[in-house]
Amino acid sequence: MSKNAISNSVIRRLPRYYRFLGELEKNGYDKISSRELAEKMSLTASQIRQDFNCFGEFGQQGYGYNVSELRRQIGIILGLDSKTPMILIGAGNLGTALASHLDFGSVGFRLVGIFDTNKEIIGKKIGDIAITDIERLPDFCKTAKPVSAILCVPDTAVEKTVESLVNLGIRAFWNFTHCELHSDSEDIIAENVHLGDSLTTLSYRINSEKH
Amino acid sequence: MSKNAISNSVIRRLPRYYRFLGELEKNGYDKISSRELAEKMSLTASQIRQDFNCFGEFGQQGYGYNVSELRRQIGIILGLDSKTPMILIGAGNLGTALASHLDFGSVGFRLVGIFDTNKEIIGKKIGDIAITDIERLPDFCKTAKPVSAILCVPDTAVEKTVESLVNLGIRAFWNFTHCELHSDSEDIIAENVHLGDSLTTLSYRINSEKH
Repeated sequence: MSKNAISNSVIRRLPRYYRFLGELEKNGYDKISSRELAEKMSLTASQIRQDFNCFGEFGQQGYGYNVSELRRQIGIILGLDSKTPMILIGAGNLGTALASHLDFGSVGFRLVGIFDTNKEIIGKKIGDIAITDIERLPDFCKTAKPVSAILCVPDTAVEKTVESLVNLGIRAFWNFTHCELHSDSEDIIAENVHLGDSLTTLSYRINSEKH
Repeated sequence: MSKNAISNSVIRRLPRYYRFLGELEKNGYDKISSRELAEKMSLTASQIRQDFNCFGEFGQQGYGYNVSELRRQIGIILGLDSKTPMILIGAGNLGTALASHLDFGSVGFRLVGIFDTNKEIIGKKIGDIAITDIERLPDFCKTAKPVSAILCVPDTAVEKTVESLVNLGIRAFWNFTHCELHSDSEDIIAENVHLGDSLTTLSYRINSEKH
């Protein structure tokens, strides 16, 4: 079965399965039934079986899933062993927080460079990586060949930044700006993070309780 | 119909509808058909009609939706006019980024206080709000009565922080730590932000293209 046929909502659930299975592993679980996993994740057992069936047979009827093996297989599907080279554009507060707190290696990436236009912070280190002047990006790309970028630039700079990054061979964007990038253009893959949507959901939950 | 009966996935889509309708309004659209909205949002028209039907009648057969009116109604459902008082706990890079870049007023909240334990940053301002010593939180809560909090604290501090916040009357959490808070306990509402899940989805998309 082609992976491209898998629905977006299944894909969105995979990282959560992977995370939950990691917790189970840590807590000493060897195997788990779809019913038990469903309860823990607030899903239905049939939903879980359907999701996993998209990728082949993971469990055995009446036995349940082997936690480590299931996690390993989902990790392969997610490409977590690939260590895709990634750069950060924009080392303000948000960029700095992402570069210092995220474990890129565990989610399929390798942070290889950090770039900014602000001369005052150039040379400063975030973890092991020194912030570099964005003017040096073209040379950097020739040797390091990053294919993905985190966008933490002002909204006014997005269009120009994306254009020049695409010209330098970068095709995948983790986008924290307020400008939505569209993946449907054939050249780029974009994951737009809308933190405001998450906060809006919290607003709904608080207010729906009042009625 | 009770709002509590509405599924999680519908609730998750509402902020996105609200955001898209805002864009349409800005671009001068007066009305839009479910088919046209579906195309723009990569959903199906029947999905959109089903979602909106959960909340009553928004459109008119053969006419489409009035963009401003639909957006206004979704905003009311989301409680965006409520300006719920919110505090930020932890003014490191991530907390500072959230406090300075987010438009809380437009998503139903009002940021009223910022707290940290780090003596070196106490008194420093983020926007209009001075960072306050967390020891002063109990007094602050007596007068300002915040009901929601953004958690940007180290993972080791989560349990103790949440416990004391709950004791001070805070029930809703926007949680950026790696510790999952569970909403199913009756006392609290939690929106857990897993930035790693979003990055994992990007990994999947990059790698599934290779096959």
